[in-house]
Amino acid sequence: MVRRRIDVLVVASCQENSKTLRAVAKETPLVLLDRRFKDLDANFVGTDDVLVGKLATEHLIQMGYRRIAHIGGRKTSTSLGRLKGYKSALARHGIRVPKSYVIQRGQSDESGDTTGRQAMEKMLKLKPRPDAVFCFNDPAAIGAMNAIISAGLRIPEDIALIGAGNIRYAESFRVPLSTIDVSSSALGEFVGNLALKLAVQKRSAQPKAIVVPPKLIVRNSTRPTNP
Amino acid sequence: MVRRRIDVLVVASCQENSKTLRAVAKETPLVLLDRRFKDLDANFVGTDDVLVGKLATEHLIQMGYRRIAHIGGRKTSTSLGRLKGYKSALARHGIRVPKSYVIQRGQSDESGDTTGRQAMEKMLKLKPRPDAVFCFNDPAAIGAMNAIISAGLRIPEDIALIGAGNIRYAESFRVPLSTIDVSSSALGEFVGNLALKLAVQKRSAQPKAIVVPPKLIVRNSTRPTNP
Repeated sequence: MVRRRIDVLVVASCQENSKTLRAVAKETPLVLLDRRFKDLDANFVGTDDVLVGKLATEHLIQMGYRRIAHIGGRKTSTSLGRLKGYKSALARHGIRVPKSYVIQRGQSDESGDTTGRQAMEKMLKLKPRPDAVFCFNDPAAIGAMNAIISAGLRIPEDIALIGAGNIRYAESFRVPLSTIDVSSSALGEFVGNLALKLAVQKRSAQPKAIVVPPKLIVRNSTRPTNP
Repeated sequence: MVRRRIDVLVVASCQENSKTLRAVAKETPLVLLDRRFKDLDANFVGTDDVLVGKLATEHLIQMGYRRIAHIGGRKTSTSLGRLKGYKSALARHGIRVPKSYVIQRGQSDESGDTTGRQAMEKMLKLKPRPDAVFCFNDPAAIGAMNAIISAGLRIPEDIALIGAGNIRYAESFRVPLSTIDVSSSALGEFVGNLALKLAVQKRSAQPKAIVVPPKLIVRNSTRPTNP
């Protein structure tokens, strides 16, 4: 694509390092979507992932949960930021959890929902079992949801569940999923506009960061319907 | 993109006519994914949409439903083929339904799930009410599902529901959704391989059609869990 002299490259990377992208950035204006890299000073459009983790975890704490676990992703900025927010919210409330309450996804693991299911199956065997789980994204939460229901447990009465991303249909799942909305369609518009602007500019200015604040969406997976 | 001299263009079009694509096809090898056009003789990778409609409707008939309605899409080959299959299955069994049992989506209508919900809301007012609905795709079926549940009715006891596409998470919806699988990931692989082949060839051979047969997936939305 670089050889075809494209005007701008928008990248939603699932890489853990920026080697290839640093080479691309020398020739082509770059916009990173959702995921950024410490050693790559490029344009960025996304959300504040630490705040995503804080909002989700603070919500679970406010709902009265204390044995709060976390299912994370690969070592992308998204996943690591949300883990950091989770830890920071627990620390702020003086809540300590065993190490086994945090499961991150390995480099070679399956897609989000499979990892979520497998991680949840492990957590269901823990004693004491978590009473709430924050999953770093909604696909992982769907996998966890299926594992919890298959084990004959109720959501949220036995285990509460919150994801992040507010993907399409999240409110139509077996249990409507609480989540953190990251304004995906607004991000798409910002990326499009920024890319058009960069395509017209001859020399790229200082890299620009557009950060859209995340927002809590409460549905039945963290809120008992019959209190 | 054509001016950048791309090697191959893969198009999943939501247009109802092929005007632009016919112009593109003069300069660039084209692969149509899922949707084709009568007046454009291009490479095609997709499923047999008439058979999709037949399989879904035959399944509803076999489950004992007779007042079978259809929620369709825009006038793409996908939507029209599935409608044709629906009509053909009804005719084969000598089942007649009122005209109001078929609602198609207008050019200006909202996205699939919104259209599905609105179409279903209209159908719920009909007398006699349909006892089963075949939605031309899964997003429309999710909209219909939400409308049925919001009206206090049960799926499938009051109204059975089947979609098409077997989209990700279809089995994790409020009622796990029966659907017609169209082997999306296989289609993706076929498209990729065909595109690579076309990129290497200097002169394009006779357009090729790869048609993957659809497959019925039965879940709870058409099969009562407590018979």
